[in-house]
Amino acid sequence: MKTVRLALLGYGNAGRAFGRMLERKKADIRRLYDAEVVITALVTGSRGSLFQPEGLDVAAAEADLAKNGRFTDDSGMDAMAVIQSGAYDVLVELTPISIRDGQPAITHIETALNLGKDVITANKGPIAWAWRRLTDLAAAKGCKFYYETTVMDGTPVFNLASETLRLCTITEVDGILNATTNYILGELEKGVSFEDAVKTGREKGFVEADPSMDIDGWDAAAKLTALMNVLMNAGLTPNDIDRTGIRDVTAAEVQAARARGMAVKLVCRGWLENGVPKGKVAPAEVPMDDAMATITGAASIVGLTTDLAGKISVIEYEHKPEIDQTAYGILSDLARILAG
Amino acid sequence: MKTVRLALLGYGNAGRAFGRMLERKKADIRRLYDAEVVITALVTGSRGSLFQPEGLDVAAAEADLAKNGRFTDDSGMDAMAVIQSGAYDVLVELTPISIRDGQPAITHIETALNLGKDVITANKGPIAWAWRRLTDLAAAKGCKFYYETTVMDGTPVFNLASETLRLCTITEVDGILNATTNYILGELEKGVSFEDAVKTGREKGFVEADPSMDIDGWDAAAKLTALMNVLMNAGLTPNDIDRTGIRDVTAAEVQAARARGMAVKLVCRGWLENGVPKGKVAPAEVPMDDAMATITGAASIVGLTTDLAGKISVIEYEHKPEIDQTAYGILSDLARILAG
Repeated sequence: MKTVRLALLGYGNAGRAFGRMLERKKADIRRLYDAEVVITALVTGSRGSLFQPEGLDVAAAEADLAKNGRFTDDSGMDAMAVIQSGAYDVLVELTPISIRDGQPAITHIETALNLGKDVITANKGPIAWAWRRLTDLAAAKGCKFYYETTVMDGTPVFNLASETLRLCTITEVDGILNATTNYILGELEKGVSFEDAVKTGREKGFVEADPSMDIDGWDAAAKLTALMNVLMNAGLTPNDIDRTGIRDVTAAEVQAARARGMAVKLVCRGWLENGVPKGKVAPAEVPMDDAMATITGAASIVGLTTDLAGKISVIEYEHKPEIDQTAYGILSDLARILAG
Repeated sequence: MKTVRLALLGYGNAGRAFGRMLERKKADIRRLYDAEVVITALVTGSRGSLFQPEGLDVAAAEADLAKNGRFTDDSGMDAMAVIQSGAYDVLVELTPISIRDGQPAITHIETALNLGKDVITANKGPIAWAWRRLTDLAAAKGCKFYYETTVMDGTPVFNLASETLRLCTITEVDGILNATTNYILGELEKGVSFEDAVKTGREKGFVEADPSMDIDGWDAAAKLTALMNVLMNAGLTPNDIDRTGIRDVTAAEVQAARARGMAVKLVCRGWLENGVPKGKVAPAEVPMDDAMATITGAASIVGLTTDLAGKISVIEYEHKPEIDQTAYGILSDLARILAG
């Protein structure tokens, strides 16, 4: 039985859900992959960090955090110190990042790959801003670099393309990728005003305190860029996306569209124009008999147009707790590494 | 560079589309898998067979068939003789079969596996009738046994579950899996009578000369059984499915449902009842805001409910020529074998 050591950078809701899921599937991991997974480091932003090269007691760490609000055995090591220690086989990068430049996650990932470590990230930033550089580095170092959860959580998109659409060329992607705008547009359709939709969305947890990254289409643009970089080798950044948010959409417009048999959605689309990749995020009317029109709330959809298999779409449905879907994306990447 | 030899049993539309696709992706296969794929046997039902252990000239064989209506260099070998020759690495089983017992495909597959050969089949029969036995045999012999194209053609379902939903348990499957009934129900919705829908469907190629296997739900039941056997380890046969066809559905019923915001579809569903797998195929009303309601004509959908990733659906859209989607399922299985 091999031992595989993980260092977790970021230990918020996703990190903790991942830790619980890992514990729950421990026996399956032993049986299927002949592997024992241990966590050697947990790094938080403001609650300290734990570092134990022989493996941590995660349950005890959880209890400590719950009781004391921070790690009482704080190692004093920050993210970079843990990365540079090399005391792990797989870096799990879950730090909060700026969607506007993908840092500090990009530097974290680059440093770990340079040390010959495999990397899993839940951060879309590095895939949107530096995918090609990081992928080339991983290849040069013989390391795995996976990021399934960055778009549609654990619903397979990237792993689907690489593991099940072999020999296909993907010529177009489309989708609905942002829950906040999806929620707000749904409220507008009911006749709720934009302001009220944002307000109730905040109460329900659909809308963040500062919703501008979602409402102005930045989050969707970052996800579209990630899809296009990985699936179409586009070499874009979110700045290259033709981006219009939903700030100017009114309840009256959405209701009028609905009366015509159309649903207004924040649609993402990436395609080739004379061989040049183009990406667009904008509100658009979708016919009610298109699967996209059925995507509401926290559900999402990605469509892939291929040269050999026609068009395929994948839908992620709303699920409680949603964080488990994020955690599963990380776990599925880990399982892919363990499967070798 | 390794040489991988294929024997094709059945050389109808799917076999020929596969041959063309293989030729088209030859350079990619060399580059990605360091493999040269050659076809050593082509077996037809009534137009003879070709057998050439060093590899056939497929273009010449095609031209021969087109010109002479049969292979002029007929080897005189039937399917079993080719299988027993062992002059191949991968058996590609595409013979026409009876959906009622999966023969002769099951015997073909069993014989090849016993010889230590990898097998790809496009026949749903063996997966519906003998999946567990064939899978156990393949495992015992260290052989690969893949069948992606049997449900939803090349759209990944089986490979998706095994390659991208690792560590998940699938607790429920649902879907719309039969194009003929989907087409007829669509015509009923327009007010066309059942008899006229069957008649025009025949002209358009949506309905077979004898449509009873489709209309009575046998094809859908076989596909549901295949899904449940592979994804839920159900150990069922199509006889175990609670099956109702669409023979008694009228245009008036479908139109009345539509007026209530519902679409009538031939819905397949498999679930666990106190741990026991249950399968049902029957016409059912689906709300218009369910992705299932958007599935028309030759499109299809499969939904997978999982313990870790929530519910995921995959849609296959109508594509011309449809046969390419079937061929791609075979090619994707071959690529999976080549990837090792």
